[in-house]
Amino acid sequence: MRVLETAQQVREWVKQLHAVHGLTIGFVPTMGSLHEAHLSLIDISRQRTDKTIVSIFVNPAQFSPGEDFDSYPRDEEADLELCRERGVDAVWLPSVDEMYPEGFSTYVEVEGLDTQLCGASRPGHFRGVTTVVSKLFNVVQPDVAVFGRKDVQQARIIQRMTYDLQFGIEIILGDTLREVDGLAMSSRNVRLTPEHRLEAPALHQALSEASSQFQEGINEAERLLETVRNRIKQDAPSGKIDYIQLVGWNDLQPVEHVDTKSLLAVAVRFGSVRLIDNIILEK
Amino acid sequence: MRVLETAQQVREWVKQLHAVHGLTIGFVPTMGSLHEAHLSLIDISRQRTDKTIVSIFVNPAQFSPGEDFDSYPRDEEADLELCRERGVDAVWLPSVDEMYPEGFSTYVEVEGLDTQLCGASRPGHFRGVTTVVSKLFNVVQPDVAVFGRKDVQQARIIQRMTYDLQFGIEIILGDTLREVDGLAMSSRNVRLTPEHRLEAPALHQALSEASSQFQEGINEAERLLETVRNRIKQDAPSGKIDYIQLVGWNDLQPVEHVDTKSLLAVAVRFGSVRLIDNIILEK
Repeated sequence: MRVLETAQQVREWVKQLHAVHGLTIGFVPTMGSLHEAHLSLIDISRQRTDKTIVSIFVNPAQFSPGEDFDSYPRDEEADLELCRERGVDAVWLPSVDEMYPEGFSTYVEVEGLDTQLCGASRPGHFRGVTTVVSKLFNVVQPDVAVFGRKDVQQARIIQRMTYDLQFGIEIILGDTLREVDGLAMSSRNVRLTPEHRLEAPALHQALSEASSQFQEGINEAERLLETVRNRIKQDAPSGKIDYIQLVGWNDLQPVEHVDTKSLLAVAVRFGSVRLIDNIILEK
Repeated sequence: MRVLETAQQVREWVKQLHAVHGLTIGFVPTMGSLHEAHLSLIDISRQRTDKTIVSIFVNPAQFSPGEDFDSYPRDEEADLELCRERGVDAVWLPSVDEMYPEGFSTYVEVEGLDTQLCGASRPGHFRGVTTVVSKLFNVVQPDVAVFGRKDVQQARIIQRMTYDLQFGIEIILGDTLREVDGLAMSSRNVRLTPEHRLEAPALHQALSEASSQFQEGINEAERLLETVRNRIKQDAPSGKIDYIQLVGWNDLQPVEHVDTKSLLAVAVRFGSVRLIDNIILEK
């Protein structure tokens, strides 16, 4: 497995594979602290392409002041070992200095899809995401890129950006992986206190309960949201609800009834740890 | 010469040249109505790379409502003939429908460099430019791209964007070409009335006069700007001055004295035709 530091090293590796050997390249951009869900994205990339490259970069541009950039978990050695074991061909470890040189002033923004859900409570977050992903795409020039469905708003925004800016990259979304009690896997889970860890599965349970109601014929947003709210309040009393929203899949705008593919999504804070989860409602 | 309509045709042409033949590609993005200055950019590209592709696209996103999008001169047949004669290998004629599909909502923006000069009088213009150039770059993936120095703010913004977003493309600026009386070549010149055409060379004469003063040791912005203003008022009485500014080359912000490489730039309206020109002041 190649461990690459500079964009130039990545370009040379990619050019060799693309131009000389005619191979396809799959890309899994991550912020590190890899867990089984990241590894499942790597598996998807390996199944779909000849060579897989993973980037590990905790991107400062997508954290607001006061968010958890400094405390975001980092473990480079463990990450590299996991990538090696999982058959990754190259890992790129960009430096903040190379990604954001002095005078950096260019931003990529997807309008409209960022007004609800996490976009409403994390202003500037998705601009930071789309900017860094554009840069990563420009350097890696992959054929396929794989993102997790847990960060569903991010995934939808990146799909839109990739289409609008004509990157010519196929975006694949990998399913959310869960702990045995239903908690969505997240690098942030390790920062939960034992008490909060016990309450955290309530997010998925609440979404599942609403999904069952939907399958039984209830499609009013008000009732489905109420179900989620009540379950979280009851089973996760320490949690501070950031949002519970039901939005359309295409425009990520609130809907009153589920008539087409929709997304029921929550964000809940446990102390300084903010967890998100979502479920797709579709007939 | 290949005439390509869709992005997919361009990708296939480029991939063949890059991957199969290992050739380098030069790119000259234009809005058509080609004149000798465009052709000089094509010459630069042909000298520097193996194959040259020209795009012709009057980009609606860089015109504000009320600007001259509809009346911007277009002559596709003549443009194709000029490209053919000049040895261009491929011309891409993107359609508005393919470039801006329904729901298009992604924009690329360079902050800071767009506050002065044309950016001040054409809000949103440079966002339209950087967005479309990003798209063109993503499809063409050239090794080198050539822009004219007459649109100097555009050129500087594209240089910044290319560096910040790590496109890995070398940006080359071609010198401004001029008519015998000094008027900078522009596709818009054909829309000048005979009277305005006679006055228009005053822009370059005014900038040259200030440049001579600078060479003689005068470096106060106030005096240099005054020289330009007086010359234009005297020799182009029909012209309505949009701006006369002296800015630093790096940040495009106003300077009071020319201590480092600076840019003296003007925009003047003759009827509905807005002309720009500039000169570099450097010791």
